[in-house]
Amino acid sequence: MRAITNPSFLIHHHHHPSLASAVLRSLRHRFPNFSPSLIKVRAQSSSTSHAELDNARTGRSGSLASPPTHLDVTQKIDVNPPKGTRDFPPEEMRLRNWLFQNFREVSQLFGFEEVDFPVLESEALFIRKAGEEIRDQLYCFEDRGNRRVALRPELTPSLARLVIQKGKSVSLPLKWFAIGQCWRYERMTRGRRREHYQWNMDIIGVPNVTAEAELISSIITFFKRIGITSSDVGFKVSSRKVLQEVLRRYSIPESLFGRVCVIIDKLEKIPIDDIKKELMSVELSEDAVEELLQILSVKSLTKLEEKLGSSVEALADLKQLFSLAEKYGYSDWIQFDASIVRGLAYYTGIVFEGFDREGKLRAICGGGRYDRLLSTFGGDDLPACGFGFGDAVIVELLKERRLLPELSPQVQNIVCSLDQDLQGAASSVAARLREKGQSVDLVLENKPLKWVFKRAARINAQRLIIVGSTEWQKGMVSVKILSSGEQYEIKIDELE
Amino acid sequence: MRAITNPSFLIHHHHHPSLASAVLRSLRHRFPNFSPSLIKVRAQSSSTSHAELDNARTGRSGSLASPPTHLDVTQKIDVNPPKGTRDFPPEEMRLRNWLFQNFREVSQLFGFEEVDFPVLESEALFIRKAGEEIRDQLYCFEDRGNRRVALRPELTPSLARLVIQKGKSVSLPLKWFAIGQCWRYERMTRGRRREHYQWNMDIIGVPNVTAEAELISSIITFFKRIGITSSDVGFKVSSRKVLQEVLRRYSIPESLFGRVCVIIDKLEKIPIDDIKKELMSVELSEDAVEELLQILSVKSLTKLEEKLGSSVEALADLKQLFSLAEKYGYSDWIQFDASIVRGLAYYTGIVFEGFDREGKLRAICGGGRYDRLLSTFGGDDLPACGFGFGDAVIVELLKERRLLPELSPQVQNIVCSLDQDLQGAASSVAARLREKGQSVDLVLENKPLKWVFKRAARINAQRLIIVGSTEWQKGMVSVKILSSGEQYEIKIDELE
Repeated sequence: MRAITNPSFLIHHHHHPSLASAVLRSLRHRFPNFSPSLIKVRAQSSSTSHAELDNARTGRSGSLASPPTHLDVTQKIDVNPPKGTRDFPPEEMRLRNWLFQNFREVSQLFGFEEVDFPVLESEALFIRKAGEEIRDQLYCFEDRGNRRVALRPELTPSLARLVIQKGKSVSLPLKWFAIGQCWRYERMTRGRRREHYQWNMDIIGVPNVTAEAELISSIITFFKRIGITSSDVGFKVSSRKVLQEVLRRYSIPESLFGRVCVIIDKLEKIPIDDIKKELMSVELSEDAVEELLQILSVKSLTKLEEKLGSSVEALADLKQLFSLAEKYGYSDWIQFDASIVRGLAYYTGIVFEGFDREGKLRAICGGGRYDRLLSTFGGDDLPACGFGFGDAVIVELLKERRLLPELSPQVQNIVCSLDQDLQGAASSVAARLREKGQSVDLVLENKPLKWVFKRAARINAQRLIIVGSTEWQKGMVSVKILSSGEQYEIKIDELE
Repeated sequence: MRAITNPSFLIHHHHHPSLASAVLRSLRHRFPNFSPSLIKVRAQSSSTSHAELDNARTGRSGSLASPPTHLDVTQKIDVNPPKGTRDFPPEEMRLRNWLFQNFREVSQLFGFEEVDFPVLESEALFIRKAGEEIRDQLYCFEDRGNRRVALRPELTPSLARLVIQKGKSVSLPLKWFAIGQCWRYERMTRGRRREHYQWNMDIIGVPNVTAEAELISSIITFFKRIGITSSDVGFKVSSRKVLQEVLRRYSIPESLFGRVCVIIDKLEKIPIDDIKKELMSVELSEDAVEELLQILSVKSLTKLEEKLGSSVEALADLKQLFSLAEKYGYSDWIQFDASIVRGLAYYTGIVFEGFDREGKLRAICGGGRYDRLLSTFGGDDLPACGFGFGDAVIVELLKERRLLPELSPQVQNIVCSLDQDLQGAASSVAARLREKGQSVDLVLENKPLKWVFKRAARINAQRLIIVGSTEWQKGMVSVKILSSGEQYEIKIDELE
């Protein structure tokens, strides 16, 4: 496969690899009204003859009603999925299943249990007054009962809701994972999609950095499993307690903390002067802003210690995390970087972000500690940390590194009858094989053998089983092993 | 488990088996404003000291802005999922995964490939003017771009859309399956949920009844796999061509066909006089209505042949289906019943419905042939048939028959250190085991052994691995086999 180096191109097109469809999409992108797929729907009455219509009007039915108005309606249906969303035809679904299977297996390797929540939640669950990107892009609606609802933009608030609901009936720590679809409504200029699937792992009830270390270990286990190494991907790690310490020194109220973090998260996305302006608009003095930006440029723990002193909590956490990383054996994957704060308002401690070392792609995953989220929903706080890992950037990375797996359909047998009268016989052969756990594509029509061979090749069948009348009368079928061409007859009872 | 015989009770409560929660829900049901779970959210500033607030106001920060308004906001968060939706805590998720795994394995046994579509589709895709229940309960919204969108109520229209989009690039027949969440907005009086998951299997490109026979065979394979027999469940089968023949004889236009079917589908749900009235309101004469109702009461093919003559297409289809059923070996599961028409407007031929023989539950699944759906979207028609199988009624049935599987968490190892300094050592032991494919719940805090044993029991761990300092200095750990109580020390390199 050709390596495509423009990430935005990749993002936009990676589910439509053919050139023709890329051109189409690019046209549609530039000319929003260009819709080659808008097709006139035939009136529903198209197959009705005039005679019948006349009858309907004049009346053997005895009714005087005029023809229903829908006869005249012309609708246009777009055959594409809604803007920013995806279909999963078999080839895409195989990739998604492969990815999810790896998410699941890694989570289970770490002793996590799977959970899920409604994709439609009450809007209130996601409303935080911090100017988060995720909040501004909320896919929200009013339902028929006039309730404000939203397609979830992330999974963590639902998890927090469920943890509060379960209360004391669960034994801590909880180690939960989820793979769920999340939605954001944003302009499509950057070619980003409006939905993605996100793998989350969360640990509820552990105040110690051992939890963060375990989470990072699980992501790295996932990377290794799919062929990604520490020369492809790294983790930038920091702690929000670093910022908190600076804010404390300038006596800035803790209530502003989340908002300051959200502003700082935009550091690499908007000009530095805008960042400064935004920070000053939330009550930070020029001095405080300068000090903050100074601290954010620090890339080593030694330097951080020089700046903040050795007694701050942030430093102890970070030191412990790097020491644990050594024990787990993933030191070469992680580095301290004070500029990492993550864009969600609710993080309180360690934060981390997986990044592509070539610097072409957006963050691959991110997470951190959120010890005070539950109380914002009215529950009792519990120490908690977790991460989110989307299904989009990782696929781009795998493509760039040519690590996408070859996934093809796999059916063990194709069964066909040589003449129409034996269709029932072929059904019974298929049923017999399936009872023994063998997968069977049963040919459901009378087709020439040439067609059958072509289909067998497409689905990678291992055996072709032919039900012909001469053999059938002897209680036998023909078997052809498709890899070797070997062919033989076998009694139906002996077919396994 | 106590067998609960009132199906509506079961529907409403089966995810909340405890009596306490049943009582709560029932209270909430009767008194919509009763909300024990509405909890006051603490103001975000609750952890901010007065001194800090004063500082913020008076000014080391140099800002004159007043405190942000959100300090005063009090929000209430409901800890329950939105009405009619579900959370999936681990125990529910295990059941869902078990069910989906069976759906998947059966589909693959039959050589079907998995697909999926967006849960949010353009509303136009689901609009059919036939008075279908599914259409009237559309969960629809206007998005921020003023587009009419809907949470999908079913999967078939999306499948049809994708098939049209793919056009000639796919080789027929397509055998596709999907497991997707579907939504309907309805009053909750009957205790039905607003979302469910639906397993679909569809065959596109086969005009022959062999396709329907194959689909029914796959559902029966699924039933057998989970312990359901033909004395629990049966299939009622008919063909819409029976109705079509009657309408033809009364010269009723084909364009009314879908609407007539939707009305007839309500036969067991609303009084017969209302059915008659509705039928007459769509141009059917009294004679035609009487004849229709006569035909619908027929329960044998012989009787049907007497009524319609032997040359009608419906009869040939049905005879072939029953003959194939014999070859597949599922004759005892199916019966002819002319009253089955199914509630979707688009079916054109064979229709079928899985039902509980005790008659307590709603239809378990249903499907049929829809040879003309694609053209209603502006595509070229292709012969097609499929079924939908929800995740709700089957779980009720399994509960009634006491066939619900016992699914418990499964982690192979629990690893803990005996003192805090060895936490890193325990991490390295866990990492080593996971590399060998062993699942590990790593104890992340310093906990007493009693706690560890309790947790080990809860997660059904097979081995407890203890990292203690005496053994660790020798490069060893203690292993306890939890089923037998056997205990030994082993070199870390030899741990598998």
